[in-house]
Amino acid sequence: MPAYDKFYSRLAVGIKASDIRELLAIIKHRKDVISFAGGIPDPKLFPKSELADIAREVILKYGDDALQYSETKGLIELRETLSDFMRRTKGIQTDAEDLIITTGSQQALDIVARGMIDPGDVVVTENPSYLAAIGAFKIAGAKLVGVEMDEHGMDTHKLEEKLRSLKNSGERVKFIYTIPVGHNPAGTSLTLDRKKHIIELAEEYDVMVVEDDPYSYIIYEDGADTTPLKAIDKYGRVIYLSTVSKVLAPGLRIGWIAAIDDLTRKFELVKQYLDLHSPTLTQFIVAEAVKKGLIDRMVKVATPYYKSKRDAMLSAMEDYLPDYVDYTKPIGGLFIFVKVDKEGFNTTKLLEVAITKYKIAYVPGASFFVDGTGHNTMRINFSYPTFDEIYEGVRRLSALIKNE
Amino acid sequence: MPAYDKFYSRLAVGIKASDIRELLAIIKHRKDVISFAGGIPDPKLFPKSELADIAREVILKYGDDALQYSETKGLIELRETLSDFMRRTKGIQTDAEDLIITTGSQQALDIVARGMIDPGDVVVTENPSYLAAIGAFKIAGAKLVGVEMDEHGMDTHKLEEKLRSLKNSGERVKFIYTIPVGHNPAGTSLTLDRKKHIIELAEEYDVMVVEDDPYSYIIYEDGADTTPLKAIDKYGRVIYLSTVSKVLAPGLRIGWIAAIDDLTRKFELVKQYLDLHSPTLTQFIVAEAVKKGLIDRMVKVATPYYKSKRDAMLSAMEDYLPDYVDYTKPIGGLFIFVKVDKEGFNTTKLLEVAITKYKIAYVPGASFFVDGTGHNTMRINFSYPTFDEIYEGVRRLSALIKNE
Repeated sequence: MPAYDKFYSRLAVGIKASDIRELLAIIKHRKDVISFAGGIPDPKLFPKSELADIAREVILKYGDDALQYSETKGLIELRETLSDFMRRTKGIQTDAEDLIITTGSQQALDIVARGMIDPGDVVVTENPSYLAAIGAFKIAGAKLVGVEMDEHGMDTHKLEEKLRSLKNSGERVKFIYTIPVGHNPAGTSLTLDRKKHIIELAEEYDVMVVEDDPYSYIIYEDGADTTPLKAIDKYGRVIYLSTVSKVLAPGLRIGWIAAIDDLTRKFELVKQYLDLHSPTLTQFIVAEAVKKGLIDRMVKVATPYYKSKRDAMLSAMEDYLPDYVDYTKPIGGLFIFVKVDKEGFNTTKLLEVAITKYKIAYVPGASFFVDGTGHNTMRINFSYPTFDEIYEGVRRLSALIKNE
Repeated sequence: MPAYDKFYSRLAVGIKASDIRELLAIIKHRKDVISFAGGIPDPKLFPKSELADIAREVILKYGDDALQYSETKGLIELRETLSDFMRRTKGIQTDAEDLIITTGSQQALDIVARGMIDPGDVVVTENPSYLAAIGAFKIAGAKLVGVEMDEHGMDTHKLEEKLRSLKNSGERVKFIYTIPVGHNPAGTSLTLDRKKHIIELAEEYDVMVVEDDPYSYIIYEDGADTTPLKAIDKYGRVIYLSTVSKVLAPGLRIGWIAAIDDLTRKFELVKQYLDLHSPTLTQFIVAEAVKKGLIDRMVKVATPYYKSKRDAMLSAMEDYLPDYVDYTKPIGGLFIFVKVDKEGFNTTKLLEVAITKYKIAYVPGASFFVDGTGHNTMRINFSYPTFDEIYEGVRRLSALIKNE
């Protein structure tokens, strides 16, 4: 056999299998390990019988189209449905013509990356930020510049400083990437003032904003502001990404980009080379599901359910974790971010011990930081584990933190 | 609004909307135009009621998994099913571990392109070759070198000359891209000797072969050789791509890469950044469909049906087209390639007239050539039009050829 490595692109050479990913892949098959590592919905909530009926119905009724090739941008029925849905639930005024249906949010990130980033371009993100977004931007060649966060997410005064210094040093900033609500991994949400500030800064420094919003439908506190930046963007600066993964079912892989003007057309052309179009069948299913109110219903059911899990997790943390451990209290999303203020405590190095000795898994926080920091942090998911696992898992986590 | 073009990547700047694509998009809504332009299956053949039942069943039975996130490489059930299927029908011995499920063949092409091609690398293709493959390789930065074809496809002696001269000039050739059976657009199929020759040349010149095989299941002539290169590759040189798009339903967007060794792992890592994984639901559906023999059955039904359409098209061409028009007689696939030996006849320039005046559409052949030739050629599809449309369409095509 030939030595295959000579056939790799530089991109392929640069992508390494991550040890953490390998470790976390193994635990999927180990029933004795409690995992807080995933970011996945509780399958109990999937509206299975309704989706089964919808799937059958769309194939029988629209099979000639639902099983055939379709438009690169996505089914017009789905784009119109989602355009209405965003208007009704989020106040976002994006015409169906400016929507592009993607294979989950991940493909939306890849399309944005490929359509906008050249090697050396700067992307400004929250620090920490979503692992797979960082990855998509990096393989497109982006330099990532992180902005400090506090309990309300990205500190926009620090953002302003960064933008100013990047401008002064002649860097080409393409966009600010933000997860405004239920931040992954930090669990924070931006205040309305900060959202406005980000948009003003985008206009002032002539950069775009990529708003990644998978979580804002599931909000645990009354009165929390969940206005999308896209809804208050008067300058045409915001590209908005969302998905049905957390509010219907991730296995359908339906996400979308609410783009703008010429960018829509470019993103469409990029997507054409990626996969021609996302599956027609799953698009038909999601269009029907949204029309039938399945997402509205799932949000109603999921919100109190995940809230009770969040509360269980926070309560277990209060009971078990020593006082040098700090953690966020998220108003939305699926994650709590934990910081251990103990000399030399390194969650990356400890993951293997955590799994093998303490039978508990998390995602080491360092993976989410763009500046090599965060070794004493970890991301904890509360949507997937059962209540028993939440309590028992936090107890194990506490033992890990105290003993290691 | 900002001037968005400053935010484009060079890739996005380079991707232009094609006039031809625009023209062909318009005719979808015009009932008076007969289109030979598509490459799409006849929806009459879709096994709708069976797929409707399967879709319902997999959601009800396996919904917790079928609606959930799943492995980047693809569902193990589907990979095992396809591995068995390729072994049984094609003599391809690829373990499920070396399969990667993709969102149609197009994503397979994109993954191969991103995993293997750096700007300036050479990809050797048949000339003409598949438009969207050319596109995927080009946006990765490949230089395309075309090899002349005759009625048996790529002339492998010319291939040898090209490989030698590329080697002598120090070019870095990553792979030979071939569509061995029912070539798109040329309609040709390689002889077994040529397939063996390609593999020997790949070994001798130390390059890979990317075999794109969507069509070899639908073969119109007994005794035609449809052995995949992958099945006779003793050196580990062949990466094989296929799809259920032509033998089940394209709207499911299920394709796959039968890769090899370290390349499998790299392709998997690349795919992770593209979309995490292809939809779980459609993977479950296809796994069930293959197990239940739906593809075997569809091949049995589609083969005589498309053969009768091919024969109708060939017969109409013999009746109507003037003798300075040459065309292929495909043993498989969905296309006939037409060459008009008439001074100054330019199918690209004539497309608009063909549509508006003659009410007939085709794909101009020049789009498929990597060297700017082929202006007097066109690709004609026979799978989608009805028999009436085939006869009437060829009559119109003949008028166009004679009058313009």
